[in-house]
Parts: sequence; structure tokens; C-alpha cells
Amino acid sequence: MKHPLRNVLLIVEYDGTNYCGWQSQAKGVSIQSLIEKAIGKILGKRSPALASGRTDAGVHAHAQPVNVRGHFPMDDATLLRALNSMLPPDIAIKSALTVAPDFHAIRNAKWKTYRYQIWNSTEKSALNARTAWHVVSPLNLAAMKKGAAAMVGKHDFSSFQGAHSSIKGTVRTIISLEIKRRDELMTVEVTANGFLKQMVRNIVGTLVEMGRGRMEPERMKEIISAKDRTKAGPTAPPQGLFLVNVEY
Amino acid sequence: MKHPLRNVLLIVEYDGTNYCGWQSQAKGVSIQSLIEKAIGKILGKRSPALASGRTDAGVHAHAQPVNVRGHFPMDDATLLRALNSMLPPDIAIKSALTVAPDFHAIRNAKWKTYRYQIWNSTEKSALNARTAWHVVSPLNLAAMKKGAAAMVGKHDFSSFQGAHSSIKGTVRTIISLEIKRRDELMTVEVTANGFLKQMVRNIVGTLVEMGRGRMEPERMKEIISAKDRTKAGPTAPPQGLFLVNVEY
Repeated sequence: MKHPLRNVLLIVEYDGTNYCGWQSQAKGVSIQSLIEKAIGKILGKRSPALASGRTDAGVHAHAQPVNVRGHFPMDDATLLRALNSMLPPDIAIKSALTVAPDFHAIRNAKWKTYRYQIWNSTEKSALNARTAWHVVSPLNLAAMKKGAAAMVGKHDFSSFQGAHSSIKGTVRTIISLEIKRRDELMTVEVTANGFLKQMVRNIVGTLVEMGRGRMEPERMKEIISAKDRTKAGPTAPPQGLFLVNVEY
Repeated sequence: MKHPLRNVLLIVEYDGTNYCGWQSQAKGVSIQSLIEKAIGKILGKRSPALASGRTDAGVHAHAQPVNVRGHFPMDDATLLRALNSMLPPDIAIKSALTVAPDFHAIRNAKWKTYRYQIWNSTEKSALNARTAWHVVSPLNLAAMKKGAAAMVGKHDFSSFQGAHSSIKGTVRTIISLEIKRRDELMTVEVTANGFLKQMVRNIVGTLVEMGRGRMEPERMKEIISAKDRTKAGPTAPPQGLFLVNVEY
């Protein structure tokens, strides 16, 4: 009996520390390759797993939506358990749901939310080492919030785009950019209709320059209008970044 | 110039995942050995690092007090930075303080607090894999709280002592044992004047049996009075356990 072709949306959680990123690369183990290998065992042949977006090496996900198509010989709940039993502890399928044949995790994404964690203390933290950027200088929350407020809205974010990007349009809409602090742990949470390459890490790197007092928050509008990557701050390291949610 | 002998109290945070435990063993790398090696580089000779208590392989610490003695050629703040620069990212010294010569991290401990994390969900969690025990069966919080309440107070906890313990007295006083739930994550937090070998993991293993409905919470008093390890539940795995605080 041939099972019908299904388009299954997987929601995947991962600790990216040990991987070369979501996407398969020449070097290193990718999260994509491990999911495709597990799917391959179930289907008897390899089938592509398409995520809502790539995440860099060391970046994590609470909920990365991933599309897989195939003649699966089991229901969604059984597929979810089978996949989880084949994946290492740092990759977990949170849900599996058969969706419409034309649903596409990349193209149909409306809003994405990323969270970035900063460990702001003179001393490092062992329990946050894999999941936060350690910034030693005390950060001025008010200055960072001021800089962040100027980013909200529809802008050309070329100044915050990583090098070697092949993308054409660089206009995106940020609908919220919130910064919070709880003792030594700061979080920057940003929601937009899409993100350029390394955009969140470049935003965080720039806001941290403002928090350190090295850059005036009033300059944010000017940095955006410059459309010049060299005007913004450095790229924050990957381990503080989490893909939190994608809305369709 | 000879520097005076000092007794320094270090507060150490660690992610125990990659270690054979606090104490040096024949096999594996211990947290103690790495700290002693770093101290040895500063002093020019090895000196013992004595913790408030051992933690097993895979167990973590937010704040493990550790005594080190030596003719340190720098002040406490410089010692702290020097040690942190020599230790791997998953071990961090949070503070260093010169204390009275007779202060002893083990003998002077009055109260210790441990926290245990349970990921209670049908699906595993990638981001909690290193720091929580995954329990699939839904746990009944009320039953667990009932069992926990019967443990508070001064008791002989032989029923919760791991095998091969050489300790003589088995009476301890639990001053609080609290269980909380936030979505899928449960925490068991216990404070006592001391703990027997694997006592927290055996308490959690027993409370989880009650939460699963396999053991009646009303039986807790009887389990304690039996002074028999086979009457209590199984030992919970190490990765959910954190040494949180030691009071002197």
C-alpha cells in the first residue's frame, strides 16, 4: 500500500552549540543534516528539510519551523516520537503537523521573533556560557532603549546586513524591539517581518556600543540612513541568539 | 618578599555535564582538578581545593564554596580574574574572599540548598537536556507536595542514602522542601543542615513516584521510619541537580 504524500510542519528546538548551523556545510555537522538523516531512515530515501530561515553556527532555536515532504507510513504523533528517538539530546521536535500541500516554511512566514541574551557582569557565568554573550562593561539600559526605539518601523537595514549576502531587497519592518534586564541577564527581543543576514547580531552589537557609552543613541537614525555597514557597531557573537517564534 | 599565607573562599559556578564530578577520580576530568591546576600555576605548587561537599558527575552548581590556602602574590580581585582566565567556559569563579585562617568550607556549613529540575512533558526539550530530568508521565503536583511535607523536620534519612556511604550519623534536618511548576518545568528545592550521599536525587526519585501515582504520598512517613533504601523510590538522574547555596 502506498501512503499519501504529506507536507509536515515540524517545530524544532535546538541547542546550536555543537553544530555548524542549521544548514548543511562542507565542514561540521548541521542540524538540517541530522533531521534529513532521520527522515531518510523513515522514508527509505533522503528528503529535504526546509527551515523558515538559516541560523548560524552556535545559534539556538526554541521553535524553528521546518517543512518535510514524504509518503510517511505513520501519523504525525508517531512521526514526532520516531524522529525524537533518532535525534541527539540537543535537537528536539516539539510538534509535527500535516499542513496544506502548498504551505512553505520560508515563503509563508509573516513575522519572526528572535531573542538575544547578554550576561552583563564583571565575572563570567558558567551556566550561561553557551547561551549568552558576556559583556564586562556595565551597560546603560536607558541608552540602549533609546537607540532601540529609533529602529522600530519600516527601514532599509543595509547598515545591519552581514557581508556576502545575495539578497536584493533590504527594507524590513521591525514591529517591536524590547530590552529587559533581570540582575546580570539582559535580553533583547526583536520581531520583524524578516531579517537580513546577521541582522539581529548587528543590531545587538550596535545597541551594546550605545550601552557602553561608546556611541550616542541619538545617532541611530543617522546609522540607519547611511546604509553603510561600517557605521553600525560590531556583530554580537552567535551563542546569545535564539530563534523564538515564527508566525504564519 | 614572601607573601602571607591566606585562606581564600572561592564561590564557584559550574556546568557539570562534561565532568566526572567535583572530586578528582581515577577516570575523567574533575572540577576540583582544574581549579587545583589553576591555583598551582599561580602558587608555583599544587594546593588542595576543598569544596563544601562533593557533587556527582553531571551535577551542577550555582554557588559551590571552595577553600584554598596559599601564599598568593595578588589580592582577592586579581586572584579571581586570574583563575577565571585559566578555567574553561563551563567553570566560573563568582567571588574570591580572604577569610579567617580557621574557616573551613565543609565543617562550617550550616545549611545547604539544592534545586532539582524536572522537564515534565511528553516531548523532550533540547534546551533543557543538560539541566533537567525528562519525565514523560504527567506528574500530580498535589501528591508530590503531600509527600514532601512529610519529609520536613529532623529524621533519620537512611532510606534516602546511596549505597557505599561511609558516613556514621544519618539524621538530618530538612527545613524546607518546596515544589513548583511553571509550564513543563518543575523545580524541587530543598534546604537542610546536611545531606547524605545522593539524598536529594533519592528524595526526587521518590516524590516523582508519588507524582506518577505509583506510590501513595501517605506512605512517606513509613518510608522514612523503615530506614531501608529499598522502600524509597529510584535515584533521579544527576543532570537535573544544582547546588544552589551554602550558608555559614
